[in-house]
Amino acid sequence: MAISTIYSHSELEARSRIIEAAREEVLNRGILGLRVANIARIAGCSITSMYRYFGSRDGVLAEVLLQLYEESFAEIYALVLERLGGTGPVVVDDIVACIPMPHSETSQKQHEIRSQVLAVAGTNPILRTKLSASMRARRAMLSTVLDELEHRLPAEVKLDRDIFTVLIFNVNFQYNDLMGDDAVTNEQYAALLRRLIIRE
Amino acid sequence: MAISTIYSHSELEARSRIIEAAREEVLNRGILGLRVANIARIAGCSITSMYRYFGSRDGVLAEVLLQLYEESFAEIYALVLERLGGTGPVVVDDIVACIPMPHSETSQKQHEIRSQVLAVAGTNPILRTKLSASMRARRAMLSTVLDELEHRLPAEVKLDRDIFTVLIFNVNFQYNDLMGDDAVTNEQYAALLRRLIIRE
Repeated sequence: MAISTIYSHSELEARSRIIEAAREEVLNRGILGLRVANIARIAGCSITSMYRYFGSRDGVLAEVLLQLYEESFAEIYALVLERLGGTGPVVVDDIVACIPMPHSETSQKQHEIRSQVLAVAGTNPILRTKLSASMRARRAMLSTVLDELEHRLPAEVKLDRDIFTVLIFNVNFQYNDLMGDDAVTNEQYAALLRRLIIRE
Repeated sequence: MAISTIYSHSELEARSRIIEAAREEVLNRGILGLRVANIARIAGCSITSMYRYFGSRDGVLAEVLLQLYEESFAEIYALVLERLGGTGPVVVDDIVACIPMPHSETSQKQHEIRSQVLAVAGTNPILRTKLSASMRARRAMLSTVLDELEHRLPAEVKLDRDIFTVLIFNVNFQYNDLMGDDAVTNEQYAALLRRLIIRE
């Protein structure tokens, strides 16, 4: 259901209170603990008005989970800006520095959030559509960045684009988080990437 | 909670009815639609007796989700047996034929199940422990298979083990399922694997 209504100030406030409440519930209890009645209670509104803003339970969830999903990439975007911003020359290590490593301070939580979003996308068609559009936009952005990098790398370096679009794009390090002592380390992953992302 | 009790025949039957009911609920409604009361109703038992067998809601879920997760790899194991069973010589294409491709008749459903399992593992410590043990066993099995293959491949072929343990092991093609026309094809993935899994 498209949200095409024009909202008043107080309606916009209620909408963002609902999103904030749903977000807290997902972060604190996970999607299995999520109850529409709890979200309404925390947001201080009725379930009816919640549905008026978001169409359905699936609509509320889709909105919040997509937001969390996109935020989980904020660290990556920040690195890209930091290491690859501007138009000057770059080296392979600048690119490796922008590829998400398996371990970081927030990585385990981020991996869990992404799995929860994917899990819900399987049964929530609204989220599925939104997530699909978001991922296609992310892939298009990756292509643009790779096009640009080709010109900024030393002339003899050619990127192996399939490594980015087929493998790195589809990696989910929540598997790795579950491996304990057998987990891949950042050093191991970075070394592998340095070897793979350029073609001879 | 360890299930160390010795069960009578009728108790074992009740246990498997509960698992079967939870399984149906997960497959039909997804984990978000899962309600302990529904599982008990379908299994024809009380919530109390359900908890007696499995310790808690987390315990029931952990049992069923781990089972679904392990079953989602049945196709892969069947291919491994078919293409790599025995002790005779093998070629690179035999190995590629055993690596899960992004698209198959059942792959989308399997990817969704795995995401649901991972999503729940984030907030269910019983599942997390079981899943972690299962994945470590799977990784150990992969290592054994790779050791053995080294001797069955032509002498000049050397496997690039990091490709298997770091990349293929951590790939989640549910991302790819969401990419529509932009999805990686089986042919594209197989070609990339043929190029990557052996070292020069």
